[in-house]
Amino acid sequence: MRIHGVHRRSIRPDPNRGWIEVIDQRALPHALVLAKLGTLPEVAVAIRSMWVRGAPLIGAVAAYGVCFALAEDPSDAGIERACRELLSTRPTAVNLRWALEEMCATLRDTPPAGRFDAAWARAQAICDEDVSINAAIGGHGLNLLRDLAGRRRSPHCLNVLTHCNAGWLATLDWGTALAPVYMAHDSGIPVHVWVSETRPRVQGGLTAWELGQHGVPHTVVVDNAAGHLMQHDLVDVCIVGADRVTSRGDACNKIGTYLKAVAANDTGVPFYVALPYPTIDWTLDDGLRSIPIEQRDAAEVGRLSSAGARPLYPEGTAVANYGFDVTPARLITGLITERGITGATREGLLSLYPEKADTSS
Amino acid sequence: MRIHGVHRRSIRPDPNRGWIEVIDQRALPHALVLAKLGTLPEVAVAIRSMWVRGAPLIGAVAAYGVCFALAEDPSDAGIERACRELLSTRPTAVNLRWALEEMCATLRDTPPAGRFDAAWARAQAICDEDVSINAAIGGHGLNLLRDLAGRRRSPHCLNVLTHCNAGWLATLDWGTALAPVYMAHDSGIPVHVWVSETRPRVQGGLTAWELGQHGVPHTVVVDNAAGHLMQHDLVDVCIVGADRVTSRGDACNKIGTYLKAVAANDTGVPFYVALPYPTIDWTLDDGLRSIPIEQRDAAEVGRLSSAGARPLYPEGTAVANYGFDVTPARLITGLITERGITGATREGLLSLYPEKADTSS
Repeated sequence: MRIHGVHRRSIRPDPNRGWIEVIDQRALPHALVLAKLGTLPEVAVAIRSMWVRGAPLIGAVAAYGVCFALAEDPSDAGIERACRELLSTRPTAVNLRWALEEMCATLRDTPPAGRFDAAWARAQAICDEDVSINAAIGGHGLNLLRDLAGRRRSPHCLNVLTHCNAGWLATLDWGTALAPVYMAHDSGIPVHVWVSETRPRVQGGLTAWELGQHGVPHTVVVDNAAGHLMQHDLVDVCIVGADRVTSRGDACNKIGTYLKAVAANDTGVPFYVALPYPTIDWTLDDGLRSIPIEQRDAAEVGRLSSAGARPLYPEGTAVANYGFDVTPARLITGLITERGITGATREGLLSLYPEKADTSS
Repeated sequence: MRIHGVHRRSIRPDPNRGWIEVIDQRALPHALVLAKLGTLPEVAVAIRSMWVRGAPLIGAVAAYGVCFALAEDPSDAGIERACRELLSTRPTAVNLRWALEEMCATLRDTPPAGRFDAAWARAQAICDEDVSINAAIGGHGLNLLRDLAGRRRSPHCLNVLTHCNAGWLATLDWGTALAPVYMAHDSGIPVHVWVSETRPRVQGGLTAWELGQHGVPHTVVVDNAAGHLMQHDLVDVCIVGADRVTSRGDACNKIGTYLKAVAANDTGVPFYVALPYPTIDWTLDDGLRSIPIEQRDAAEVGRLSSAGARPLYPEGTAVANYGFDVTPARLITGLITERGITGATREGLLSLYPEKADTSS
């Protein structure tokens, strides 16, 4: 990721292994605020209160949270307590569970005295792997965008619509949904991104900031506008990220994703979900029935995330704040993974991950 | 409409015919600010800057705008100038054009000396007719809701989802989409309304305020949540208003309406549009191709409508702000008009308005 022209990752680990430095995303796009996290409670707060967000980033930060817990208590009970606390911070993104299971698998056969070293190394490996995964997603997505650019509807550019933020900030680097966009832009394909606002927390502001830092042309619209854009041939392709994808290809992602998918389906616009393998939950089949949907504080809806805003609704108004929705596989044109692009079906996923044939639900 | 328990209409005309008093809707739901309009420029500003909004209300306020213009210049040229200025204030809602044509038809054969009297009487008649139209829409919609309540999905109440504000505030009284809700509530049918926020201008705040004043249970959600609610059987019916409906039943309404309609279609939730006859544009057929879609100031998106908010996007971010979208007739279960409920087809509309058989495009 490039910030004011300087390359960095979204997590910078202390060379002395005492903390990690992350971007406090609550302050963006107004200010770039860096935060040092060095204890389990600090990591838990940062995930729960969304200083850091995005399924892959949550998993990586949680892995370091295990490290900080081990520095204080490297016992089996200490590991279990840390994992339980971290797992409770956000319920929907399965990458969190995946990362904690990875850490536990690493630590299980390591004696307590060696656990911190092993954990820190595994956390760093998770981060490095995330970068290479996203680069691979970007490469496959680049081929797709190159193909779509050849038959784009606008003479000027390829119009990509995205929702929420599945870019650099949601991962260690590159992003998932935005990796193909960055690579297309860097390859000279004229690309323009419709940035969907993503109420209530306006992660569209993060996406606009990221794209601006990289120099990718983009336009912000309210979430309500996505259908109108697609009806009028102003979108060539939708690409979104995911917080959990089931074994048959149902994709859980930020609330509002389903509305975009169903409009894309109605208007003939291809709809892709970009995801790394830790986002696949092989234990689940029917996403609508089985993926837990986080409900967050009503205050996120009633006020805008920026400070100083007056409440939008009369005092005492009831508010429901669902964080995610599920897009059924039938509405998804394809899944873009680090191993290639496939149809959103059990067969499609197993063609890329044949080693999961036994574990898939 | 009931405000703090007191009944009133959204327009209160001066008994001495010097002004009309309207609610400055920009201040809601924080404060009830009344504004007196007594000149053509004042009326034009109030419509253009959305002190008043809602297709039927815009038409009625514009009718009084013609009166104020006539008080200064009752000549043919004066009428024409006034209509041209008023027509330019908002492009999408056809009720504005309808009201101005009604005023011109009234004035055409009236000598200048009698025009003000004739115009004022016609404006008052437009207001009175709007109230009786909406009461009739409410009555037909009440029958529909009573029927739906008999097979509702929730044991507790009938869940209605609406978008934007098509209530009291958007009309003279009752509203269009909300008239059936008020009547159902008053009839003892347990009804609950999902209020869709309606970015960028958050007219959901107006709807929440209205429903609260009337005592109708309701819950606010962001626009992104509508699909999730429908997927989980939390919506029995969608009812929205309209700014223009074509002769074949395509419905133009606040941006985001199409996304709700396409999700309702995907999930089997009935989707109704409530409208008075002046909202029908018999001269148009294909709504997607022919209805002009207003584009408004980017500042509406970049900041929240309430004062004092920090910008949501980096300075200089490009923003597109489409005010409306078109829901194709095929996604609409039925149209609720003052003459009854019919299918969203040319045949359906002509069955209610047979006198239009010759004029329909």
